[in-house]
Amino acid sequence: MVSSQVVVDQQVQKVLDALKGRTITHVYFVACGGSSAIMYPNKYIMDREAKNLSSDVYSSNEFIHRNPRKLGENSLVILCSMSGTTPETVQAATFAREKGALTVGFTNNETSKLAQESEFVVKYEWAEKSVAPNTNLGLLYQLTTGVLSVLEGNDKFEKMVASLHNLQAIFEKSAEQYKEKAYQFGQQYKDEKVIYTMASGANYGIAYSYAICILMEMQWIHSNAVHSGEYFHGPFEIIDKDVPFIILLGLDETRPLDERALAFSERYGEKLVVLDAKDLDMTGIDEELKGYIAPLVLNHVLRRYAEQLAEARNHPLSQRRYMWKVEY
Amino acid sequence: MVSSQVVVDQQVQKVLDALKGRTITHVYFVACGGSSAIMYPNKYIMDREAKNLSSDVYSSNEFIHRNPRKLGENSLVILCSMSGTTPETVQAATFAREKGALTVGFTNNETSKLAQESEFVVKYEWAEKSVAPNTNLGLLYQLTTGVLSVLEGNDKFEKMVASLHNLQAIFEKSAEQYKEKAYQFGQQYKDEKVIYTMASGANYGIAYSYAICILMEMQWIHSNAVHSGEYFHGPFEIIDKDVPFIILLGLDETRPLDERALAFSERYGEKLVVLDAKDLDMTGIDEELKGYIAPLVLNHVLRRYAEQLAEARNHPLSQRRYMWKVEY
Repeated sequence: MVSSQVVVDQQVQKVLDALKGRTITHVYFVACGGSSAIMYPNKYIMDREAKNLSSDVYSSNEFIHRNPRKLGENSLVILCSMSGTTPETVQAATFAREKGALTVGFTNNETSKLAQESEFVVKYEWAEKSVAPNTNLGLLYQLTTGVLSVLEGNDKFEKMVASLHNLQAIFEKSAEQYKEKAYQFGQQYKDEKVIYTMASGANYGIAYSYAICILMEMQWIHSNAVHSGEYFHGPFEIIDKDVPFIILLGLDETRPLDERALAFSERYGEKLVVLDAKDLDMTGIDEELKGYIAPLVLNHVLRRYAEQLAEARNHPLSQRRYMWKVEY
Repeated sequence: MVSSQVVVDQQVQKVLDALKGRTITHVYFVACGGSSAIMYPNKYIMDREAKNLSSDVYSSNEFIHRNPRKLGENSLVILCSMSGTTPETVQAATFAREKGALTVGFTNNETSKLAQESEFVVKYEWAEKSVAPNTNLGLLYQLTTGVLSVLEGNDKFEKMVASLHNLQAIFEKSAEQYKEKAYQFGQQYKDEKVIYTMASGANYGIAYSYAICILMEMQWIHSNAVHSGEYFHGPFEIIDKDVPFIILLGLDETRPLDERALAFSERYGEKLVVLDAKDLDMTGIDEELKGYIAPLVLNHVLRRYAEQLAEARNHPLSQRRYMWKVEY
């Protein structure tokens, strides 16, 4: 139980209550695209903190067809779809529930199909209209650390909930801090045909999301989220003075990978956009959790970069040629 | 034990003998770049087959810095580096061994640092100078199915070893079958600046390897291995008649994902290179294992495509600007 000054989301608390006395050995994080990307830092937390629990992240349809043999009544399956209508994610909830797994559906719409198919529902608010603890990532972090607390006695839960309640101010400060840089990014990179992103550890999912959702989906710019640790084993041969890379430096334990990738990139590249979480004012975030929470702030800042890029290119973030328009 | 007509690699057998009576709960597949990519189908086999074992694939330096809390004496850590000198992978072996894990180093050089730092060594032959069962993937498959056999009584091991001994003939037949198509690929795509790859399930690692090692590293062509299941949640907005995609269709359970991605791509794309494992003659491969073995054959065929692309572009696969040339 957390102390009185911090408030756990009641929907998350219900899941945690249900976990008590239940044997869970594996956590599956299941979603598609941008909703899948936000699962990655949760897997990072699980890996860093779990003494016994194992976990996996799968794109929803991969999860169903891969059909992990371990999936069953000792599994917790955490799903996410903003609209709650993503067919593969709805099917994944049905599939997991039929296997006896405990299912939790994160969605913005509590009457959606995902909400109906999941045993527990966590309704989150859309990032732009909410405060940090009530966003998808804010609530997922509460659940992930809560699961670790209930099942393994991990001590990060209370600190996480308290830290998340101080996060909105950091979001707002960082957006202001990077306002001019975001504008410059839009101006400088508006004519690029390819923009890579790069990160590792807790931040890789943010880089992945930026590559596939912002650049490829919303801007039709070629991209690829390169893992900083993989960079030197293939991808770095692509860098040159004309090749743009957005490089994220986190505060988590894998930061040295990003620093090394950046140092090399600075020698041979000239179009580098560096977002370093060390430049952020993380006041109010527990020291032990800064590495976990940095990706949420970087993500918030990057959204401003996306908006400025869209503005400079006269290509709204909502513009699509296929999504919602044709059958697929 | 396998029957007399099939021969298990003796190095693999030594590891399996050491596993008897030992408690292993988690398998870590750890390597970098192309050697990491070959771990993905092994993870696929683990997920499909393991009743209790859990597993993860990490790039070596991510593994060390992420420092999974579960890593310990109940862990099996399988590492791979062709030369046995990849610093991060050598360090990962040392790191894992210090934690008490059972370590197995796959390498082409049995006196290398990786061989020295690993408790067990499996020497493999370079693909171009070897037969299928003695390549990195051939030996890894023997170990993965062997581990499942020893620890969980899984029945695929013997069939896998027997099937692998029939694989070389399939490699040779498929290379001949795709010879002209490989040549045409080189001619048609030699001037492209961006080429995507796409796959899912057992074949995703092959698509990943082709994107980061062949295209980005060896040809300096922009690339990204898109997961077929993620395609419709972002990346598909990039496709157009001018955007090339290499699409792999496997024989494993996730094939419907690839088929759906292909069907959409055929409506809006015109530069599609489709490698469908259904077109392969898989004689001698156990019916139950065709899905697992298809990626090895697709990989073999894709190497021919790479050679023809390099030839047509007059850019040898061995050409580098940074790797082995500058410090990093």
